[in-house]
Amino acid sequence: MSESRSGRTLPSGEARPVYNLDRLLEVAVRVFTERGYDGTSFTHLAEASGLSKSSIFHHIESKEQLLRLGLERALDPLMASTEEEGAVSGPAMDRLTHLIRRNIEIMAERLPYVKLLLGVHGNTETERWALAQRRAYDKVVAGVVEEAIAEGVVREDIDAPTTARLIFGMINSVREWYHPERHTTPDELAAQVCSLVLDGIRRH
Amino acid sequence: MSESRSGRTLPSGEARPVYNLDRLLEVAVRVFTERGYDGTSFTHLAEASGLSKSSIFHHIESKEQLLRLGLERALDPLMASTEEEGAVSGPAMDRLTHLIRRNIEIMAERLPYVKLLLGVHGNTETERWALAQRRAYDKVVAGVVEEAIAEGVVREDIDAPTTARLIFGMINSVREWYHPERHTTPDELAAQVCSLVLDGIRRH
Repeated sequence: MSESRSGRTLPSGEARPVYNLDRLLEVAVRVFTERGYDGTSFTHLAEASGLSKSSIFHHIESKEQLLRLGLERALDPLMASTEEEGAVSGPAMDRLTHLIRRNIEIMAERLPYVKLLLGVHGNTETERWALAQRRAYDKVVAGVVEEAIAEGVVREDIDAPTTARLIFGMINSVREWYHPERHTTPDELAAQVCSLVLDGIRRH
Repeated sequence: MSESRSGRTLPSGEARPVYNLDRLLEVAVRVFTERGYDGTSFTHLAEASGLSKSSIFHHIESKEQLLRLGLERALDPLMASTEEEGAVSGPAMDRLTHLIRRNIEIMAERLPYVKLLLGVHGNTETERWALAQRRAYDKVVAGVVEEAIAEGVVREDIDAPTTARLIFGMINSVREWYHPERHTTPDELAAQVCSLVLDGIRRH
């Protein structure tokens, strides 16, 4: 690609950045999150990427295809985490811990894509697909909380669906302030969330 | 006011809705939240309220004034809650519980205004004022968590600022799904959040 319009002065001899779908996706996801998906036009995508509109169409067929690819970057590992060994075998409390830890790891690794996912409205087929996936994920978690109650390791006065919503509300709020470089590591953050949710802050 | 342009057919004899600042504010806050503050024009406010632009200016001086009034509806009671008897006297754990309960009550009572507050970006002076108020509020809560640690009632391995962020991340996420008519009462929800945060879900 030689359509770079970034306006950046390139030192003589430095190659112009080679655009690939990955890089375009990264830029598009940032613009979707900043402007909202509905508020983003191909002109905005061209400006932000430095590509011409025709070069963008060389990579993708539609704006919605970019949205879908971006959402898959968050949803694929999240949904896959519900089928991992740690999520399907062992005591329910260990499975819940696994789901919480993996969710925080995925968020830290793929923050821009998770932010995009959490801002989805439901105006397009792709957005409705993403919302359905999120509901399926929430259902798995609520089910594991139910099982933990049945196994007698979780207090019986807990309401499983509300508890699942509150736990993942806490996790999802992490996107609003967390910077992997500035704050604690994903591992430490996951440990802190698990400790808070499972044992509370009170000294027992 | 008789400038209603809502297009609603009024049965003969029914008075046209009398607009006051309260009603205008309610409509504006809904539009700000749906379209974003930057994306809202006086034309949008006129359409949504059924008022002419000049009638809107009869009530307020600028769009930013409406934003400020809307944000105050959420911030005034939140900031006031930090000065209530229950928040300033007694053991730190009781004060923390008071702050959590009041926050959920205020959210349930004033949901549209709290949603507006939590979506603020910081592009205008009013938005930066609101963000500064939120930071001040968070600081109070983190301080109370610190005191609870110092009093020995909270586990020492707890990091106060992160814990405060996580607790209020959980509370703030409630806005995404909570409907006071459909779900549990604010009182019950507050009890559930406190129980989760203070004691965790594990049977001890």
